[in-house]
Amino acid sequence: MIKRKRIAELIESNDFGSEVTIMGWVKTKRDSKGGFSFLEINDGSTIKNIQVIAEGTMANYTDEILKLTTGCSVIVKGILAESPGKGQRIEVQATEVNVAGWTDPDTYPLQKKRHSFEYLRTIAHLRPRTNTFGAVARIRNALSYAIHSFFQERGFLYLHSPIITGSNCEGAGDMFKVTTLDLQGLKNKGGEVDFTGDFFGKPANLTVSGQLEAEVYALALGNVYTFGPTFRAENSNTYRHLAEFWMVEPEMAFCDLKENVDLGEALIKSTLAYILTNCKDDIDFFNSFVDKNLISTIDTIINNDFERLTYTEAIEILLKAKKQFEFTPAWGSDIQSEHERYLCEYFKRPVAVTDYPKEIKPFYMKVNKDNKTVKAMDILLPGIGEIIGGSQREDVYDTLLNRIKEASLDPADYWWYLDLRKHGTAIHSGFGLGFERLMQLVTGLSNIRDVIPFPRTPKNLEF
Amino acid sequence: MIKRKRIAELIESNDFGSEVTIMGWVKTKRDSKGGFSFLEINDGSTIKNIQVIAEGTMANYTDEILKLTTGCSVIVKGILAESPGKGQRIEVQATEVNVAGWTDPDTYPLQKKRHSFEYLRTIAHLRPRTNTFGAVARIRNALSYAIHSFFQERGFLYLHSPIITGSNCEGAGDMFKVTTLDLQGLKNKGGEVDFTGDFFGKPANLTVSGQLEAEVYALALGNVYTFGPTFRAENSNTYRHLAEFWMVEPEMAFCDLKENVDLGEALIKSTLAYILTNCKDDIDFFNSFVDKNLISTIDTIINNDFERLTYTEAIEILLKAKKQFEFTPAWGSDIQSEHERYLCEYFKRPVAVTDYPKEIKPFYMKVNKDNKTVKAMDILLPGIGEIIGGSQREDVYDTLLNRIKEASLDPADYWWYLDLRKHGTAIHSGFGLGFERLMQLVTGLSNIRDVIPFPRTPKNLEF
Repeated sequence: MIKRKRIAELIESNDFGSEVTIMGWVKTKRDSKGGFSFLEINDGSTIKNIQVIAEGTMANYTDEILKLTTGCSVIVKGILAESPGKGQRIEVQATEVNVAGWTDPDTYPLQKKRHSFEYLRTIAHLRPRTNTFGAVARIRNALSYAIHSFFQERGFLYLHSPIITGSNCEGAGDMFKVTTLDLQGLKNKGGEVDFTGDFFGKPANLTVSGQLEAEVYALALGNVYTFGPTFRAENSNTYRHLAEFWMVEPEMAFCDLKENVDLGEALIKSTLAYILTNCKDDIDFFNSFVDKNLISTIDTIINNDFERLTYTEAIEILLKAKKQFEFTPAWGSDIQSEHERYLCEYFKRPVAVTDYPKEIKPFYMKVNKDNKTVKAMDILLPGIGEIIGGSQREDVYDTLLNRIKEASLDPADYWWYLDLRKHGTAIHSGFGLGFERLMQLVTGLSNIRDVIPFPRTPKNLEF
Repeated sequence: MIKRKRIAELIESNDFGSEVTIMGWVKTKRDSKGGFSFLEINDGSTIKNIQVIAEGTMANYTDEILKLTTGCSVIVKGILAESPGKGQRIEVQATEVNVAGWTDPDTYPLQKKRHSFEYLRTIAHLRPRTNTFGAVARIRNALSYAIHSFFQERGFLYLHSPIITGSNCEGAGDMFKVTTLDLQGLKNKGGEVDFTGDFFGKPANLTVSGQLEAEVYALALGNVYTFGPTFRAENSNTYRHLAEFWMVEPEMAFCDLKENVDLGEALIKSTLAYILTNCKDDIDFFNSFVDKNLISTIDTIINNDFERLTYTEAIEILLKAKKQFEFTPAWGSDIQSEHERYLCEYFKRPVAVTDYPKEIKPFYMKVNKDNKTVKAMDILLPGIGEIIGGSQREDVYDTLLNRIKEASLDPADYWWYLDLRKHGTAIHSGFGLGFERLMQLVTGLSNIRDVIPFPRTPKNLEF
């Protein structure tokens, strides 16, 4: 089989006169009165199509080429040439156009017109052939690699934390159950489900976070990060919630809250800069068709120091605000989305809020000396809101044990997590970054279902 | 907080006389009669420890430094110096040794002696502090990055295929069920479980493969790969089975069986070469303490062309073999592990076997013109056996539909997969590589539970 050239390479090439083979899908075809046709071919390597000129003298011109429609797959051999036409620098003068796969234009679900995002979600198996979802896929790929590269360059170890788990990081949250029990013939034992016959011999869930296991590795190997799927069985049908999503969770030994915020800021800036450089065409597309302020928003994040303030300072600012909030800000209550937006607008840049009241944060966050706040940190981005949540972790055995009890959790379930504080404990910190939130930021897409290949939400499990 | 130096950098440094700060865990301590102590410190960045000299004149020498034991965490400031002693090139002459975390030497589960792998599995939260599991973690990290880099350099897009799925790629296989139903109060409707109240409104499982979804993206964007967790609820307690493991699954449009084998060979060779170069100390460790033939086995794989032969040819060789097999080879039966071993020994190199009988392979593999075999391929490695399984995929709608029916599957469940063959179909191929099998190969570790941070097997869900 002949090696094909990727269109992403070809459109940068100056190798005019050379013979090339391209393989891809017809985006559009235009038949000239002069007895030849223009084909726009895309192979997914770039948002740009390559123009193919098919002369009417070709053997299969009438029987095949003239019948090509959007969505057909073709293998084109030809000569790379400078294009005399407008809109493209190069074109391929075809010597052969072989049809790999036809499609019936009357039933092909992707027509030339613009389709709604809702409709495209119902054909998630074809939507990556559109400009928008091809661009999403390329950016998602590049953003993943940018994250890995960021951590690898800094000596972090990538950790595969477990997906099926017996523990529950947040001490709350709706979890999916995992079982091999025959649900139809489920036997109860005195009103209780008998898990002895289940695969793991006890209740199992899908993880909501790899943090606790990342702490294990941080307290042995220094700096680690996870990047994997996490799950919430929350019955939320919103623009911002998925039942299955990807999280990035760095965890660092000998790292305090301040360094934790610094790392979060560096991670966001570095990955955004990577995307601007490496996905220029796709970002330009989103900037033109989805959000005209996309690139300027990204630039603002990259080029400004993130503002740092405590929760207490944030509440003071919110209380002084002339704005009428739906939820009145109050020390001890959560910072709502509207408050996050206000803070980012107030400072005109990303904001890191630290040291939240301990009552509204999980048990594993390090308690401050005031015994009222914990070393928590959230990073808020303009237009997006919270993108990172993290903390310095409680590293003192007795304090952690008390916090577990206060949270009405069973210390026995956390024996190994507590154990880490018994044997060579250390100050350590980490955070979680919602990968899809970052994808929404760099694409400008408002619905989180459009930045993941196959979204999982309540009652949606197709594909 | 002072920036620490990673020991991996320090041991390569020639910056003698400079002040450094290191943070890590005490591996051993030796007190000299001359009134000073040698500390061996490890921070996880390398298998190598750094030697710290703590003078008896230090303020906390008697109260703290003399009491340090294996597993304590310390923050050491000192001067980098050439070491006069044997066994290390450099050392740190401490000016401060601060204890971050103590451990009780009587209860610390990791003593200086060698522990069994079985025992270490029961303390998976501490085993990354051992030489073996620190090395496993670093190699696992490097191997993951090598895989990403391999595909990124070749223009493949990383795809996050879904974890929770309504479909079943293999058309068989034991799957984990995922549910939010209250198992205790499970309501049946006429003997059937009522899934209308379940999160997805229908039965959901954990994926056994991202292949079908990868085909969607390949047939839109060309070359893609997945690298994520997959699941088998098989009740196997063997050295080679995990309930949760990571798979790498490339899928390529306009790619035939031969190119598929070529890519598999290139992937294995490239990633192994990366590990030999980038994880030299850790590989040397495994070569010394786990498998004396480790490096030579890896070299054999890197430096030999993989042998290619058909299943039919393989059976002929097996039938002619003078060896007595437990399972008699026969055309139409599976190639057993003992046969795989024989073939690798016969050719003294890795072997790719192609074109298996269609009866023993899944529905999605492309049927050959003989209508007896399919374009399947397995890559077998010396000492490991099958590491890659893949195929060219059936790209003809009617043939695929018939194969689905023959396999007693419901075509309605595969509407979108069939649809790909209706709209711009193309020759395409892909394979799956078991990441933990590759980890076993590069570490020489015989039990798969020792190459993943937190193994999931029947009745094992701790941590």
